This record gives sequence, C-alpha cells and structure tokens, in this order.
Amino acid sequence: MRSKAVPDIVISRLPLYLRTLSHLAAEGKTITSSQELGQRLGLSSAQIRKDLSHFGEFGKQGTGYDIEFLQQQLKKILKVDRRRDVCLIGAGDLGHAIVLHHEMLEERGFHLVAVFDHNPRKIGKTIGHLEVIDSEAMPTIIRDQGIQIAIIAVPARSAQSVADTLVEAGIRAILSYAPITLNVPEGVQVQYIDPVIHLQHMTYYL
Amino acid sequence: MRSKAVPDIVISRLPLYLRTLSHLAAEGKTITSSQELGQRLGLSSAQIRKDLSHFGEFGKQGTGYDIEFLQQQLKKILKVDRRRDVCLIGAGDLGHAIVLHHEMLEERGFHLVAVFDHNPRKIGKTIGHLEVIDSEAMPTIIRDQGIQIAIIAVPARSAQSVADTLVEAGIRAILSYAPITLNVPEGVQVQYIDPVIHLQHMTYYL
Repeated sequence: MRSKAVPDIVISRLPLYLRTLSHLAAEGKTITSSQELGQRLGLSSAQIRKDLSHFGEFGKQGTGYDIEFLQQQLKKILKVDRRRDVCLIGAGDLGHAIVLHHEMLEERGFHLVAVFDHNPRKIGKTIGHLEVIDSEAMPTIIRDQGIQIAIIAVPARSAQSVADTLVEAGIRAILSYAPITLNVPEGVQVQYIDPVIHLQHMTYYL
Repeated sequence: MRSKAVPDIVISRLPLYLRTLSHLAAEGKTITSSQELGQRLGLSSAQIRKDLSHFGEFGKQGTGYDIEFLQQQLKKILKVDRRRDVCLIGAGDLGHAIVLHHEMLEERGFHLVAVFDHNPRKIGKTIGHLEVIDSEAMPTIIRDQGIQIAIIAVPARSAQSVADTLVEAGIRAILSYAPITLNVPEGVQVQYIDPVIHLQHMTYYL
C-alpha cells in the first residue's frame, strides 16, 4: 500500500484528490474518471493516473474509479481513516476562527481536543465547544492524551518556543500560522499557512 | 530583471526569501549569505544561489548579500515595491480574523481597502478599520478603485459564484480560503489556503 519512495509532491496532491472526491460524492456521483478529477483540479488525467499508480490499481480502464472505494483507499494511505486528535495553541482572533470552524476539521478526519493560551485573561474562557487551557498544562495534556498534531496560532515572536515545547511533549506534526520558518528536529513535520506568501507569489504574474 | 522562463517553483520561494530577509533585518543584520538563508529556510545554499541567479547578480563571492538591497530587488521582482490594494469577501469569523490582522498584510505590501458581505445583518457593521459593504456594490467598487487582488473567505457553496463576479469585475489574483478548486479564466491567478490539505499531507508521514 505504501512505498517510502513516493515523492512528496505526489503525497501533497492526495489530499486534493480526496477533497474533490468528497465534492463529487456530495453531488450524488458514485463513479469518476481521471479526466473528471483532472478537470476539477486543473491537472492532466495522466498526472492523476500516474500519482495513484504509486499506491496500486484503483480503477479499471473504461469504467473509471468507484468514488467511495477510492476515498477509503486515499484515507488509508493518508492515515486519516481514523480520527486524529489535534490541539491548538493561541486563542486570539485567528484561534477563535479556527475553533469556530472546527467542523471543517472534523469532517475531514481531525478532532480539535484542546486550545491553549498563556494569557490569564483568555484562560478559562469558552470558545465554541472548548475551554481555553493554561499553556502551562500543555505538555502534560499532550503526553497524557497522546496528541501528535498541533496547530500554532500565536505571534511570530513566540512561535519557535511554542514549537520547542510541543516537540518536547511528543507532537510530530505542526501546522503553523506564524510567519516564520520553525526549526524542528528531523522526523517532525511542519507546514505553514502564511497568506502573504501566496499573495506575493501571485503579484509576480500581475 | 525578469524572464518569462523562470519556473513557478522558483517564484514560489522568493516570498520566503523576502520574509527571511525581513527577519534578519529586524535582528539588526545588514549582510547575509546563501548559507544563512539556507539554514533559516531548510534549503541548500546552492538552491538559493541558483534561484536568485535567474534575476541577476545580487551578491559577491565572499562578501554575501546586502540585506536591504536584496529586499528591494525581491520586492521589485515580486512587484510589491508599491502598495497593492486588496479586497476581502466574507465578514464571518475568518473574515474578521483577517481584517483584525491586516497589519500582517500592510507590513508586507498589501493594503486591505474593502470588506464585502451579502448578509444584511453584517452590512454596515465595522470590523477594525473597515465597514462591511453590501456585496451588490462589489463590482462597481473593484472597477472604480482598480483593485486587482481579492481574498475569498466565504463558504464553499458560494465561492465559485463570488469568484466569477470578481473576475468579471477585473480581479486578477484570488487567494481563496474556501475548500474547493475554483474555475477561473486563463491569466487569473488563484491560490488556496486549506488547513486540512496541510494536515492530511503531514499525517501520511506519522
């Protein structure tokens, strides 16, 4: 099912395939094709067939892909076939928006179990379904609950020390909204969300 | 200064170089090297020299890069050496967070000039420095002010029709937070922010 040799760029596209399959299923479709997926994603059908071929045989020539089956297989490959607990650090405006939109995470395999902040005025306050917990308790809770994934929504100046604490506590994957590049040990995954990076990338072409 | 032949993957890294240079300048440094930039960004120094070489000669062997000069040059290349007006569509939780953090945009070349929503309960309300404007007025305002860049923060079900209206009004670059792939005409740039795509990408490696 898996091969260590699959290029990361291929892995990066699998969540997009999964998302598009969910949309097709929501439209009532049960079968799709590499052509249809390609159209939706702005990729060639050959690219999609090649990407999926790294993991096995998911469709038959002429009959296309069974959407539900391909969804299941992609979830297995991406290891989101079980619920993944996620914690959030930072209960500011951005943290608020993330908690209030947590159903976007829930629907797609992630369960937001805790939100931490060090600001005494925020600790104990309720956002959506969660109460803001003192960051001091963060390492213990992460260890006790075996949380592997964290979202960082703190200012740039605190992001590296938060990341250090998270990694020390056992976090293996970090999604950071802070606009700095984090230093983490080998084996810890980090991805970034920085809207300005995307905006500046696009202005090049204006 | 520019060449059409520069691969998009190179362009995508330039904003990261610019961001890192700002951090180095904020630390009081005036000179840097491809080694230092590489360390901060998790890239090889050869990669950085190669990327920059597409645009000219920015440093001297042995003396490194003048940070302020390289910042200026990268801003010119990315066309963020002048202020770029941006409008936002969607005044929900996410839209709120974006407006309240607008200084993150301002500092890096983008000026948030308008926020639109179609919800009568939101229209006229003030978020930070902006009053929420009826989406009906959007095409006129975009045309009159010559806005080229838009951020979409509306639910997935409305995102495509919002994008169609934006493109029709003259928007050339869209940053979308809606978890769907948008169809836009050739020549219109689109980039996406979908945290789940990043999370699922990382869980593969857990």
